Amino acid sequence: MNSFRPPERTLMGPGPSDVSPRVLAALGQPTIGHLDPEFIRMMDQIKALLQYAFQTKNEMTLAVSAPGSAGMECCFVNLVEPGDTVIVAQNGAFGGRMKENVERCGATPIMVEHAWGKAIDPNKAEDALKANPDAKVLAFVQAETATGVLSDAAALTTLAKAHDCLTIVDSVTALGGSPLNVDEWGIDAIYSGTQKCLSCTPGLSPVSFSDAAVEVIKNRKSKVQSWFLDLNLVMGYWGEGAKRTYHHTAPINPLYALHESLLILKEEGLENAWARHTRNHLALRTGIEAMGLSLIVEEASRLPQMNAVSVPDGVDEAALRSELLRDFNLEIGAGLGALAGKIWRLGLMGHSSNPTNVLLCLGAMDTVLTSMGANIQSGVAVEKARAFYKSNG
Amino acid sequence: MNSFRPPERTLMGPGPSDVSPRVLAALGQPTIGHLDPEFIRMMDQIKALLQYAFQTKNEMTLAVSAPGSAGMECCFVNLVEPGDTVIVAQNGAFGGRMKENVERCGATPIMVEHAWGKAIDPNKAEDALKANPDAKVLAFVQAETATGVLSDAAALTTLAKAHDCLTIVDSVTALGGSPLNVDEWGIDAIYSGTQKCLSCTPGLSPVSFSDAAVEVIKNRKSKVQSWFLDLNLVMGYWGEGAKRTYHHTAPINPLYALHESLLILKEEGLENAWARHTRNHLALRTGIEAMGLSLIVEEASRLPQMNAVSVPDGVDEAALRSELLRDFNLEIGAGLGALAGKIWRLGLMGHSSNPTNVLLCLGAMDTVLTSMGANIQSGVAVEKARAFYKSNG
Repeated sequence: MNSFRPPERTLMGPGPSDVSPRVLAALGQPTIGHLDPEFIRMMDQIKALLQYAFQTKNEMTLAVSAPGSAGMECCFVNLVEPGDTVIVAQNGAFGGRMKENVERCGATPIMVEHAWGKAIDPNKAEDALKANPDAKVLAFVQAETATGVLSDAAALTTLAKAHDCLTIVDSVTALGGSPLNVDEWGIDAIYSGTQKCLSCTPGLSPVSFSDAAVEVIKNRKSKVQSWFLDLNLVMGYWGEGAKRTYHHTAPINPLYALHESLLILKEEGLENAWARHTRNHLALRTGIEAMGLSLIVEEASRLPQMNAVSVPDGVDEAALRSELLRDFNLEIGAGLGALAGKIWRLGLMGHSSNPTNVLLCLGAMDTVLTSMGANIQSGVAVEKARAFYKSNG
Repeated sequence: MNSFRPPERTLMGPGPSDVSPRVLAALGQPTIGHLDPEFIRMMDQIKALLQYAFQTKNEMTLAVSAPGSAGMECCFVNLVEPGDTVIVAQNGAFGGRMKENVERCGATPIMVEHAWGKAIDPNKAEDALKANPDAKVLAFVQAETATGVLSDAAALTTLAKAHDCLTIVDSVTALGGSPLNVDEWGIDAIYSGTQKCLSCTPGLSPVSFSDAAVEVIKNRKSKVQSWFLDLNLVMGYWGEGAKRTYHHTAPINPLYALHESLLILKEEGLENAWARHTRNHLALRTGIEAMGLSLIVEEASRLPQMNAVSVPDGVDEAALRSELLRDFNLEIGAGLGALAGKIWRLGLMGHSSNPTNVLLCLGAMDTVLTSMGANIQSGVAVEKARAFYKSNG
């Protein structure tokens, strides 16, 4: 067996996104101890950088030492106790995972179902809040990775507050790519991932909890069912200035990488990053539509970083992805669950959200679809996107 | 704020250990997708390499995408259900964490207490097995990181089998450093970490489950309380040849590093790695004893990779560690829990287990202790260790 040498891909799927050379270089730096004063100083900086990225002053802001799905679980197992009621507004794959989490906490999920590809309807959420006055938490996905739908987190959080309900918000795909303002919107618990618009290696989950959420966690009747994710214990480890109580060994090198990726975001500025994601999305959309293809999400709720494109009739969607990977080293995503086989998911996340990737992707799709005999408008997509960039400099 | 530049440390604490340049280089390679065929090929290789490291043919052998404490939790939440009885033989800090895990599963822990620093007594374990015929699991730590004690996993597993009991074994500090033979010893569930004798970055937890354990997991009455750690779901993702079902996004780059570190272990050969750990331990011990210091663990149950040294009377143990870090860039560990302030923990794990580190550590401790006016034999430790190496080439 030999050392593994990864191919050089361009990552335009639902994540991971392309990791910049700066972040890769940070990742490969020499490992130091997790209780080293220099490492603790860096953890404090990560906390401050995450507070910037989330737009929050929440003291309880940290990176869970595991992927986004553990970040989701961290929110649920800390806030939800057996017997609680949790309203889950579902509009895609990840709402289903929220339901699983609620049930595994011994609580009752009240599902507010939406069609996949539709934004969450605040009216439906409000009806559920009215019908379930004992509900403790309203949970929803701000940026649905399976479909590319953006929901109105501010409106939903405001409704929840009016009904004395906490909120758990999935922002895995939004953080760093779409507007997000944890404090202004009054979000109580939020989790994200590092491999989307932060363009860091997967494996960490930034989370943040409001003071109200922290009070609920401190005053639980039962112990958190997960020792690893128990914030009452993790707090002692990430608490600023506090004596660092050993909880678990932090993933040192991935945290170097997260620090660098957050620094890159800060250098660019959140608003600039959001604008860049929008601009590249619009260029991609221009090319996609020029080919005669369509985005499945209506314009008002499209996520710029996650573009779900309908597979044209008669086209083998998996064959297209294989050819893109083989001939262009380009990865795009397939549909999940109800949308498997029906859509492609084109990610423009973080470092991957740039004109070169947009033009590469359009050109490659145009070429392969044409060679497959698909019923598309050939040979125009790249030029239309170029024209968009020129007139939107 | 600037990019983080870690100092270049020598890591001789309880982990992380020094990560070799080969592994750091692997870590910093370009990120690819977690469903990329090349990545899946690498996952299959990791599985085979872990089977070698654990000495097992267990199909259910994989790396949990989170640190060792999540690996511990993975074993408990999958095998233990509410109402079960679990015998925990505790001889240090991590047995206490096992107890926490059992309780958080809604099960009853039967604690078999041992003094910290003592190996687990098979007779006491057998008494508990006899007294609790309904016990489902016997759990214990093979290599206690808090004290440096090796317990006889083969004997304990044999006893458990005789009482129709499954075993959960903590091998975080043993894997790659001390003899471990999962199949021959009949271990049912084992977890480890990457940052000890594998000398990889922290953040992953290799685990392996026997066919008997897998049957128990498949036939649970209740769902696993953790969605993230539910092996019924994770199985679909790591299963060889199987259609990879998306479960969570694997931590791509850390897995590159794990692949490389396991390959290094395979190239050296397990037996050679074990012998190297023993040789460097004996050299360190020679120097430690030449200074007039002593190891707290009796010779028969000393772990070569984790050496707990008594702090001499009147010495400020934290001051010594600070001076080693400041002047020698050398990290050693403090005592945990009951042993805080009373011991130093000198790790000789994986890439850190080499003569250069042994001589550096002895020389640095000799110098600093002498400058602190400690009552030690000064100026002989390094030469004694060198002599040991010369006569044990």
